[in-house]
Amino acid sequence: MIIIGEKINSTLKAVRPAIAKRDADAIQSLAKRQADAGAAFIDVNAGMFHDAEPETIAWLVETVQAATDKPFSVDSPNPAAIAAALAVNKNGAPIINSITDEKARYNAILPLALEYNAKVIALCMDDTGMPENADGRFTIAARLIDKLTKAGIALPDIFIDPLVRPVSTGSHYGKAAIDTIRRVKAEYPDVHIACGLSNVSFGLPARKLINQTFLVAAMAAGMDGAILDPLDTKLTSLIWASEALLGLDEYCLEYLDKYREGLIEV
Amino acid sequence: MIIIGEKINSTLKAVRPAIAKRDADAIQSLAKRQADAGAAFIDVNAGMFHDAEPETIAWLVETVQAATDKPFSVDSPNPAAIAAALAVNKNGAPIINSITDEKARYNAILPLALEYNAKVIALCMDDTGMPENADGRFTIAARLIDKLTKAGIALPDIFIDPLVRPVSTGSHYGKAAIDTIRRVKAEYPDVHIACGLSNVSFGLPARKLINQTFLVAAMAAGMDGAILDPLDTKLTSLIWASEALLGLDEYCLEYLDKYREGLIEV
Repeated sequence: MIIIGEKINSTLKAVRPAIAKRDADAIQSLAKRQADAGAAFIDVNAGMFHDAEPETIAWLVETVQAATDKPFSVDSPNPAAIAAALAVNKNGAPIINSITDEKARYNAILPLALEYNAKVIALCMDDTGMPENADGRFTIAARLIDKLTKAGIALPDIFIDPLVRPVSTGSHYGKAAIDTIRRVKAEYPDVHIACGLSNVSFGLPARKLINQTFLVAAMAAGMDGAILDPLDTKLTSLIWASEALLGLDEYCLEYLDKYREGLIEV
Repeated sequence: MIIIGEKINSTLKAVRPAIAKRDADAIQSLAKRQADAGAAFIDVNAGMFHDAEPETIAWLVETVQAATDKPFSVDSPNPAAIAAALAVNKNGAPIINSITDEKARYNAILPLALEYNAKVIALCMDDTGMPENADGRFTIAARLIDKLTKAGIALPDIFIDPLVRPVSTGSHYGKAAIDTIRRVKAEYPDVHIACGLSNVSFGLPARKLINQTFLVAAMAAGMDGAILDPLDTKLTSLIWASEALLGLDEYCLEYLDKYREGLIEV
């Protein structure tokens, strides 16, 4: 499981002031704790700073990279902010979060991915919007994979986001995301999946239970990457348990290690 | 989800003395509580009473049926015990748990299913043993479904048990069961699945976490029936959450009802 740690995000009320004050210690602590908890990438988001997004996200990347050697994931629809983040990268290949098949966005972001040799999270949407069901999403995923690989991006550098919408607004949205994951992994085993979890539970009570359940159901369908809070021990416990159950953890060694380290929460 | 309540089982140390003493109150309380918690069938097992199994299981069935109108599931490989249970049935169609494609067992149990119009749980095993992987299990499932339907048993009266073996003894066993479920439901949507959960976690620490995770992963693959403890509120919470996520709970109404009743445990 490729964990993209979601904590350094300007939309989180507990984090925004630390970014506004340029509190490097607070940001670096979040970066290190997520890396220690198993994050392979540290997501950074400065979207709430509007016009100052590019300089803010560049500061976030430099601050994070002074504390950890994990690569980052830059969470923005704004090409100027993405470019600013990529320009100061000094760790491994980062992820652009995200590209879509909307013409303007695709054309603005693809050159950045190629110039900086970045991986991309590709959302299953285009200028007609977000498809309601798995058929429509898979069609866009296949088109994006075709275009991106022809442009020179390797299959394992593409992460498909199946679009996770709240089941409270449509009973079919959980299944639509899960079926999209299954079809993408069946057709393109070398492509990764990366999806956010928490949107699925919007509007329902006991959201954590819904998010936990969705994590396992999506992993059972082949999800091998997710944007989540790696400091949520219950959530990561379900990741280790799922890997043991899905044949992804030979002899359950990782699960047993996590248990010995006190990292399994029932 | 078709819940088969597993609590009235002579292998459980807390339950066996109640059966031995013919403590009807204790057994009836277990039956009623499981029915109230959502069990569609009440499983009864008297296997620990060896030679007295037939008379013991007949007493269990009569005792349970005096307390609830739910049908039972008779858990035994012994045709004499199964016959004794079926002979005293007065609720709806019961389940025989279980038949296999082992020749002697199949030939002994099929006539009972036909005589008493019973449903059957069919295990994916034959005289060559338990197949290691999903291919072998699906082959047996398909053969059993073919034979049983030709003998006159309707598709919805067949519950396939994919065989759940401990992942601690083989990292592929979780995936083997899950893939078998997916293939059976894809080929035979009218057939049901019924599998036990707890065997998968044998030999691992934090077994409850593994069982909970397996439940969700199996439901995501199409499992629509399980033998489990309906009094385990965390487990049933995951069932309601999974149904909401998998598009099986229109408008999430059942999930919201369970939440209002205080039956959702995060």
